[in-house]
Amino acid sequence: MTFTNAKRIYDAVGAEAVLTEQSDLRQYLTGISTSFGYVITDKTGSVFYTDSRYLEAASAALDGTEIKVKQFEGSLNGLLKGYKEVAVPLSKTSYPDYKKLTDAGLKVVDSEPAFTQTMAVKQPYEVAFIKKACEITDKAFCDLLPRIKEGMSENEVAAELEYLMRRYGASGTSFPTIVGFGKNSSIPHHETGTEKLKFGDIILIDFGCKVGGYCSDCTRTFLFGDDKKHGEFKKAYEHALKAHMLVKENVKEGISGREADAFAREYLKGCGLDKYFTHSLGHGIGINVHERPYLSPKSEELLKENMVFSDEPGVYFEGDFGIRIEDTVMINGGKVISLTDSDKKLTVL
Amino acid sequence: MTFTNAKRIYDAVGAEAVLTEQSDLRQYLTGISTSFGYVITDKTGSVFYTDSRYLEAASAALDGTEIKVKQFEGSLNGLLKGYKEVAVPLSKTSYPDYKKLTDAGLKVVDSEPAFTQTMAVKQPYEVAFIKKACEITDKAFCDLLPRIKEGMSENEVAAELEYLMRRYGASGTSFPTIVGFGKNSSIPHHETGTEKLKFGDIILIDFGCKVGGYCSDCTRTFLFGDDKKHGEFKKAYEHALKAHMLVKENVKEGISGREADAFAREYLKGCGLDKYFTHSLGHGIGINVHERPYLSPKSEELLKENMVFSDEPGVYFEGDFGIRIEDTVMINGGKVISLTDSDKKLTVL
Repeated sequence: MTFTNAKRIYDAVGAEAVLTEQSDLRQYLTGISTSFGYVITDKTGSVFYTDSRYLEAASAALDGTEIKVKQFEGSLNGLLKGYKEVAVPLSKTSYPDYKKLTDAGLKVVDSEPAFTQTMAVKQPYEVAFIKKACEITDKAFCDLLPRIKEGMSENEVAAELEYLMRRYGASGTSFPTIVGFGKNSSIPHHETGTEKLKFGDIILIDFGCKVGGYCSDCTRTFLFGDDKKHGEFKKAYEHALKAHMLVKENVKEGISGREADAFAREYLKGCGLDKYFTHSLGHGIGINVHERPYLSPKSEELLKENMVFSDEPGVYFEGDFGIRIEDTVMINGGKVISLTDSDKKLTVL
Repeated sequence: MTFTNAKRIYDAVGAEAVLTEQSDLRQYLTGISTSFGYVITDKTGSVFYTDSRYLEAASAALDGTEIKVKQFEGSLNGLLKGYKEVAVPLSKTSYPDYKKLTDAGLKVVDSEPAFTQTMAVKQPYEVAFIKKACEITDKAFCDLLPRIKEGMSENEVAAELEYLMRRYGASGTSFPTIVGFGKNSSIPHHETGTEKLKFGDIILIDFGCKVGGYCSDCTRTFLFGDDKKHGEFKKAYEHALKAHMLVKENVKEGISGREADAFAREYLKGCGLDKYFTHSLGHGIGINVHERPYLSPKSEELLKENMVFSDEPGVYFEGDFGIRIEDTVMINGGKVISLTDSDKKLTVL
């Protein structure tokens, strides 16, 4: 019998029973994507209760594992009869759902720390999905560049890029693609719009795709023609790139998210640019595009072997321009390796 | 001064203060899309507390309305000081967030019924966004048809369709596009995959896009070449189409979701097909692709002028084929008008 993450999480939680219904966590436990279902794990094993839409596919996928698949019938409280204690992820459990459990006499404990800590360290099959998503991300970006033409809108560039990722095998984007032309690059969360591309524009693209339910995340900043007015931009670009690379060179297994962030932040401070680096260095990447670990000035989380996260220093000059250089990376053999890795030398189209 | 939906919801809730932080509801109140913020409304007006990323855009968008924009600082409990009662959408409020409010001595009441009822009836600006999304949906589908070629995968067809919607001005899809070839059409929630298109295949496509944050939703089923083996399919198609049209012809303002569902279900029963119609007739469409009203055998909700919803009867023969014919429709002048409306006569490519 193969043991799934349901057993892994049950052992980490340490409660009498673990109840999981959130779609991302349910996917983590079962390995398949479903829009409805409950996984209940206790010392005897796990049962995935779902509806007729998923019964056949789930039974096939989970055959040979410790998870039994059954059709959901009756009520959730019916399934929990006989337990005295149940663990749920509290911050993802609504007040009415919580109350139903306590009203049924159950002691409710939090499964969330076990999920976030366990999910942060990727297993080989998870790394394989993320690597595939990252390969598609790189290939799509390289093939996008020659398609970018003067007069295209931000939306049109995003459409081309998303199309390429889809054609190369992604099931969709990790998040809404950000394309910012010119001064729109200075807005870290710019909403891709109808701005048209002009000669000499800076282009910032933050994008990613999903494979097997797992995300990639990448940002590139480059020039659409060099109108020779970009001296300040070019200087800042080199500093942002140096900050990005210092993280890759210096981060090792066992250092904290705060220390990782500091490799970029301290370097930018030395260049007088730290006040323009207005966000944290990075975040974990997996089934969710933002998850543990967090790499920020306040994060004491330790980076471990097989954690996957972003390295994304950025500097933003409001109303003028912004730069962000981001790769999806992981700790492998104690050091950082880059999973997205398209060219980061300043590109001038 | 212009009054926004914040005032509309406040009046409908009837509590001392209304606190809203869920992204869909926040968008409804403010009319803009943000990833962080709190809207607090009381008898003196509304304040939208957000962070530096959105301050400028939100201030510009809400200028001249009753909503003031302020930078969020301190804590949420600090913002709620002085109130005795606060309304939040309970089923979208986590247990820890609920507990913070009650621990601060606040009486917590539910704002959700006010939101779902108010959001179900669309205002003219909302109808305009949905109509635009539906126009793009129709145009993209028509332009997709000549691009469908033998040997393409389901993912590739989805990529083409999503690309066209994006190019025609959509900001993204309403939900992951479903493309099912052959027997995959019999799975109502089929996950688009690597199946290759063969001559004679049935193709089912369920898709939609977003404009201004509002969704469209449409499904078409058709044939890729006629291998003359589709007698049963063609008969079932005509019945599904008749069921779809009966809904459009008979639904009027003031009838219930149950009665609307029955126009399709009773007709299919008369053809012996009701047992293959395994889901409900439809759902409301707006900022969320599934919202109120629900059109199902159990729904006693009354359909009102300016409600937007789907009309989507379907029949599914497991392991063989499935048919679903869906338009986004609305009640206008007391009757149903179709907002997506590409050809529904059986298409043979």
